[in-house]
Amino acid sequence: MNNHVEQWGIFELALDGPSGGNPFLEVELSAEFRHGAATLTADGFYDGEGVYRIRCMPDAPGKWTYSTRSNHAELDGKTGEFNCAPPSPGNHGPVHVTNTFHFSYDDGTPYYPFGTTCYAWTHQGDALEAQTLETLKQAEFNKLRMCVFPKHYPFNHNEPVYYPFERNDAGEHDFSRFNPAFFQHFEQQVGQLRDMGIEADIIIFHPYDHWGYAKMYEAADYRYLRYLVARLAAYRNVWWSLANEYDFMLEYKPMARWDQFFQILMDKDPYNHLRSIHQGHPENIYDHTKPGVTHVCIQHPQVRRVVEWRKTYGKPIVDDELEYEGNIIYPWGGISAEEEVHRFWLIVVNGGYAGHGETYMHPDDILWWAKGGVLHGESWKRIRFLRKIIEAMPPGGLSPQADSDTGLFPGGIGRYFWSRYAGGCNGDYHLIYLGEYQPTRLTLWLPVEKEYQFEMIDTWNMTIEPAVVNQLKAAPSYSYDRSGNPPPYEIELPGKPHLALRIRKR
Amino acid sequence: MNNHVEQWGIFELALDGPSGGNPFLEVELSAEFRHGAATLTADGFYDGEGVYRIRCMPDAPGKWTYSTRSNHAELDGKTGEFNCAPPSPGNHGPVHVTNTFHFSYDDGTPYYPFGTTCYAWTHQGDALEAQTLETLKQAEFNKLRMCVFPKHYPFNHNEPVYYPFERNDAGEHDFSRFNPAFFQHFEQQVGQLRDMGIEADIIIFHPYDHWGYAKMYEAADYRYLRYLVARLAAYRNVWWSLANEYDFMLEYKPMARWDQFFQILMDKDPYNHLRSIHQGHPENIYDHTKPGVTHVCIQHPQVRRVVEWRKTYGKPIVDDELEYEGNIIYPWGGISAEEEVHRFWLIVVNGGYAGHGETYMHPDDILWWAKGGVLHGESWKRIRFLRKIIEAMPPGGLSPQADSDTGLFPGGIGRYFWSRYAGGCNGDYHLIYLGEYQPTRLTLWLPVEKEYQFEMIDTWNMTIEPAVVNQLKAAPSYSYDRSGNPPPYEIELPGKPHLALRIRKR
Repeated sequence: MNNHVEQWGIFELALDGPSGGNPFLEVELSAEFRHGAATLTADGFYDGEGVYRIRCMPDAPGKWTYSTRSNHAELDGKTGEFNCAPPSPGNHGPVHVTNTFHFSYDDGTPYYPFGTTCYAWTHQGDALEAQTLETLKQAEFNKLRMCVFPKHYPFNHNEPVYYPFERNDAGEHDFSRFNPAFFQHFEQQVGQLRDMGIEADIIIFHPYDHWGYAKMYEAADYRYLRYLVARLAAYRNVWWSLANEYDFMLEYKPMARWDQFFQILMDKDPYNHLRSIHQGHPENIYDHTKPGVTHVCIQHPQVRRVVEWRKTYGKPIVDDELEYEGNIIYPWGGISAEEEVHRFWLIVVNGGYAGHGETYMHPDDILWWAKGGVLHGESWKRIRFLRKIIEAMPPGGLSPQADSDTGLFPGGIGRYFWSRYAGGCNGDYHLIYLGEYQPTRLTLWLPVEKEYQFEMIDTWNMTIEPAVVNQLKAAPSYSYDRSGNPPPYEIELPGKPHLALRIRKR
Repeated sequence: MNNHVEQWGIFELALDGPSGGNPFLEVELSAEFRHGAATLTADGFYDGEGVYRIRCMPDAPGKWTYSTRSNHAELDGKTGEFNCAPPSPGNHGPVHVTNTFHFSYDDGTPYYPFGTTCYAWTHQGDALEAQTLETLKQAEFNKLRMCVFPKHYPFNHNEPVYYPFERNDAGEHDFSRFNPAFFQHFEQQVGQLRDMGIEADIIIFHPYDHWGYAKMYEAADYRYLRYLVARLAAYRNVWWSLANEYDFMLEYKPMARWDQFFQILMDKDPYNHLRSIHQGHPENIYDHTKPGVTHVCIQHPQVRRVVEWRKTYGKPIVDDELEYEGNIIYPWGGISAEEEVHRFWLIVVNGGYAGHGETYMHPDDILWWAKGGVLHGESWKRIRFLRKIIEAMPPGGLSPQADSDTGLFPGGIGRYFWSRYAGGCNGDYHLIYLGEYQPTRLTLWLPVEKEYQFEMIDTWNMTIEPAVVNQLKAAPSYSYDRSGNPPPYEIELPGKPHLALRIRKR
C-alpha cells in the first residue's frame, strides 16, 4: 500500500497492536506528519483484527515524514516517510469557503455545490448502491448528503446491511465497540464519491432511528464523532454535517452538545473540512454565526430569503432542503419538478446554493431521497443544466442584485424589481431569472461604454439563444422615465414564465 | 322622478337654489330623513345650473319623511315624504363586515368579493366604457376597483373625457369648483355597476397624476371627499378606498390627513359603507387596526401571509394586488395566469380575499387594469370558477386550518401541513388546496361518526369530480402512525400540481 500517494490523496499507516480488552476505549494513537516546517496531527483508529490505522491527507507534494504516539509501546514512536506526488487531473483538493459566500477547491478551482440527497444509500446492499453511484454519474451532481447511521422512517423499514456498533443476538448495541466492517464499507463509498468528483456531505446524527443511535449517552456521541474524524478526515471530499434536523433531537441532545460537536471537529480534524448543521423547523435555524460553522445549511421552502440569510450569517448559504420533487404525502417531499427547478434558480441567482432530492412513491419503497437507485423525476436534468451555466461564468460567485441599489436598474426601483425578479451579478456578468414573471419587453440600464452579449435561457426546455435586444434612444413609453441615465437596452421576450437572461460583457 | 323608490335604492330630492358666487363653497345643505323613530342625515350637493340635490338610500320599506336645512332660505325647511318599496330581486343592500373576517349584504346574503381592477375606466369615452361593462358581465366579477381621478402613468398618457374641477383654457384647475358633468358621469357608471351586482370599490386618491389632483391643498382634499360622499353614499354598492398606494403620497399627504379622511367618512356617510386604504410598498401596510378601517386592503405578493394578517388586524383581508396577470415590465403586472390563479386559491382557502387585474401589452395601450376593454388572459375564467365554488358552500366564510391544531390533521403535524398545503374550513365543510404539491396519496383523519363526500377539483382545468377515497383500517406505511386516532381516509390523487379537495359532510 501507499505505493502512490498524491497531494490530497491518502497516506495510510497500518500498525499491528493489541486486540484484547476494548481497543476503542483503551488505546490512544496519533501521528505527527511533517512536510518541511509544517506539521499536522491526525488520530489513528482501531480497525479490528489487531490492526490500527493512521491516515494523512498531504496538502503539498514532496517528502513527508511521520512519527506516532500511543499509550501502547507497540504503536508508539513509529517513524517513517513517504513521497507525495502532485495531484492527478480532476483532483482539486478539499473544498473551502472563499469570498465570504462561496466555495472553491484548495487548488483555486471554483466549486459550486449542486448536490442531492440519499440519506441511507450506504445501507441498501451492493446492487442498489452500485446503481446509485451510476445514477449519480449520469446526473452529474457534485455533492451528496448522506447519513452515517441507517434510517427508520416511513418508506424506510428495512434493516441495514451493517450495524455501526457491535450487537448481540438480542439486538442490543455496545456503543463502546465500533463495528469496523460498517465503517470500512461507509468509507469505501465515500471514496467512490471522491473518485467521481462528488463531495460527501456526511450527516453525523439524525433523529429517524429505532436502534438507539440518536439517543446514545454523551460520551458515546463524542467518541463516535472522534472515530469518524479519525477514519474519514483524510478523504478530501468530506463535509461534516452534524445533523439532519438537529432541532428534533434537542430533547436528548441539548444545544451545548451540538456546540461541543463543533468544538471536537475543530480540535480533531487536521484539514478543517467544512462544518455545518441542518435544522427541521423553519424557526429553529441554528445560529450559524457561531465560529465553528463554516457555511449555513438551511431547510426552508422560501428560497428568496437567501438574500436575508446572507446578511444574517455572512457565510455561504446552502438551502439543502427547499423541498424535494416528488409525490408523497409530506409537503417537504411533494413539489412538482417545475417548482423544484424554479426554487433552484431563485436561490442560485440570488447568490446561494441549493440541494436536490427526489421522493416519488415506489412499489418497493426505493425513494431516491433515502435509498438512492434511479431518478424518476424531471428536475435533475434542469439542475444539471443550471450547474453548467454557473460553471461557465467567470470565477467568483453571484451576488444578489437585491442587496444593492446599484445594479442594472439604478435608483430606488432596483430593490423593488429584485425583490420580485431574481438578479445576480458577478462583475460584468449578470444572470437574471424572471420566474413567474413573463414580461415581453424589459428595459435594462447598463453603462454605455460597455458592450454586452444578451442571451435568453429557457430554464425548463434547457435552451440558450441570443436575445433580441434593441438599443433605445430614450426610455420607452411603457416604462418609467429615467432621465439622467443613459438610454436603456430593450430586450424582447416571448412572454412566458421561467425564462432567464444572461448578460455578459463581450 | 322618484316614482319608484325601493329599499337600498335612491330617493333623490332636487331643489332649485342660488347659482351665483361659488355654491360649492357658500351653500350648506343637508336633510334629515325619518322612518319611524329612525333618522339619517345626508348632505346635499350642488349639481350645477342652479340645481341642488340630496340623496337618501332608505334602509327599510314604508313611509319616509324628510326636511332640509340650509344657510340659504330657498333651500331650507323643505319637507316631504316618499314611500319605499321592498327591494327588487337581486338587490341585497350594501355590503358590510360579518363574522369578523367576512362580508355579507345587508339582507344577510353572504358576499364573497371576487373583484377586478380598472383604475381609470370611467375616463375612456362611451364606446370603451360600454365594452368594459359588457366584459364585466361576462367575467362575473362582483367588485371593481376604480379611481375617481384620471390616471397619468406608463400606458396612460391620454387625457380624460371629463375633468373633475373647473379648468381654464390654460389648463389650470380651480379646486374650489367641481365639474358636475364629471361627477354625473362617474356616478352613472357606479349606478351601472350597482345594477349589474358589482360593488364599486372607489379609490379616492392616487399618486399617478399630472393635473394636480394628488397634491391639492388640505381644505380642497376634505371638500372633495365630502362632495363625493354627498353624491355617492346613496349608491348601495359603494366601498370607500381612500387610496391606491397612499404611502407614495405621504410626502404631500401626511399620515394625519389620511386619518382625518377616515374621520370624515365616518362622520358624513350615513350608511357606514366599507372603508379601507391600499398601500404600495409591502412594508408600508396601513395600520388597519385603526377604528375607521372596516376591512384590510393589502398589496402583497406573498399571499400565504393572509393567515398572519388575519391575526394582526382581526378584520376581513382583501389582497387587492397580489400582482396582476400580464406581460409588462413591472413585476406587479407580469405574472402568468397560472400564478394568478394559484395565488387566488392560496388566499381564498386561507380565509382571505383577493383582487384580479390584467396587464397585457396592447398596441393602443388599452390594458384592462387601467382602461378596461376586453380581457385577454386566462386567469379570469378560473377565478370565476373559484367564485362559484365558494358561493356554493354553506353560508359563512372559510377559516384557515393553519390557525389551529384541531383541523383535519390532528396534532402538531397539522400546523406544518397547513403552512405548506392550504386548508380552509367552515364547519363541516373543508377546502384544501395543494398548490405546488402533488401527493398521490393523502391520509386525512376525520371524525368517524361523520360521513363525508370527497371531491377533487382541478383548479386550472376547472373540473370537479368525485375523489377516489379508501377508508383504511390503520395508518399506512407511507405516513406517520397516528395511534390513538381513528383510522384515516386515504385519498388517491393523480400526482399533479394545482389540485384542490372539497370535503363535505353528506
